[in-house]
Amino acid sequence: MSRSPGRKQENYKISRELFVLTYGALVAQLCKDYEKDEDVNACLDRMGYSIGIRLIDDFLARSAVRKCRSYSETADVIAQVAFKMYLGVTPSVSCSSAAGNEFSLILDKNPLVDFVEELPAERASLCYCNLLCGVIRGALEMVHLAAEVSFLQDRLKGDAVTEIGITFLRKPEDRKNRR
Amino acid sequence: MSRSPGRKQENYKISRELFVLTYGALVAQLCKDYEKDEDVNACLDRMGYSIGIRLIDDFLARSAVRKCRSYSETADVIAQVAFKMYLGVTPSVSCSSAAGNEFSLILDKNPLVDFVEELPAERASLCYCNLLCGVIRGALEMVHLAAEVSFLQDRLKGDAVTEIGITFLRKPEDRKNRR
Repeated sequence: MSRSPGRKQENYKISRELFVLTYGALVAQLCKDYEKDEDVNACLDRMGYSIGIRLIDDFLARSAVRKCRSYSETADVIAQVAFKMYLGVTPSVSCSSAAGNEFSLILDKNPLVDFVEELPAERASLCYCNLLCGVIRGALEMVHLAAEVSFLQDRLKGDAVTEIGITFLRKPEDRKNRR
Repeated sequence: MSRSPGRKQENYKISRELFVLTYGALVAQLCKDYEKDEDVNACLDRMGYSIGIRLIDDFLARSAVRKCRSYSETADVIAQVAFKMYLGVTPSVSCSSAAGNEFSLILDKNPLVDFVEELPAERASLCYCNLLCGVIRGALEMVHLAAEVSFLQDRLKGDAVTEIGITFLRKPEDRKNRR
């Protein structure tokens, strides 16, 4: 299942419902495979990471975004260009640290949970959409940005909004260069 | 993970790549779960069936297609409306039986395999896109049409095109009514 190297970039738009239901089937399968929610979450994150490191080429080719010059600009591009392109929604972005390396993407509406009303009681710790965190982490890594990405709030768990936290990890050499 | 009954029908379009890669992750997971290709194929078909019986409501609401009056018309709607809506491609349709109940959907290009070059040698019997057969079967069943759906040709296996066969199963009462 290797990637075709000479693949043309084509920009087909599709209806979201089939994707959302297929994603649901994936999560359900992992819930069969793993007893612990933590293992399902970790697996979704790993899968997302693998997707992110492949999706970034597609994103850069089609979005034609230029190199971001700050973490803030990067967070904006993820929300306004990438989310819009791949999920059809635009989260709002807020910076949540004085250091300027922690951001939150706030989703009033999470398209991935369209067909999901609530998590089963026995799956209370499931991060249903954890694939997204992995995708963001993987894609960022491919543009040489290390980050921790996780769900901070989730409407599926009764929170008012869905919030994805991105913490950019400054590398020692970055600090050195800034001096 | 029950469906929200009062969900609004919204028509967000998304980019196909995330779906295609997520589908790939699902198939890869099933290949980890099941040693035999036949079991993976059956699982994909079952998952597709569950998706199809849910997707049909969305399809009927958004496509506004009227009740089909023949198997031929039904096959055309699947190809020209449903495939276009959910996968962004339109297969050609041919009737492959004198009895008028067997049809082929011919895909010159299969969007689900965009990132797949070829099947691994040890997975030669895998019907990579078998989810689609299940989706069609499930959706048809919800409009009271029993059908067998399977891949007859697959470019991933070296065939010239990808061909999905749909055989509508006439019910005894249908035959009686026609007399």
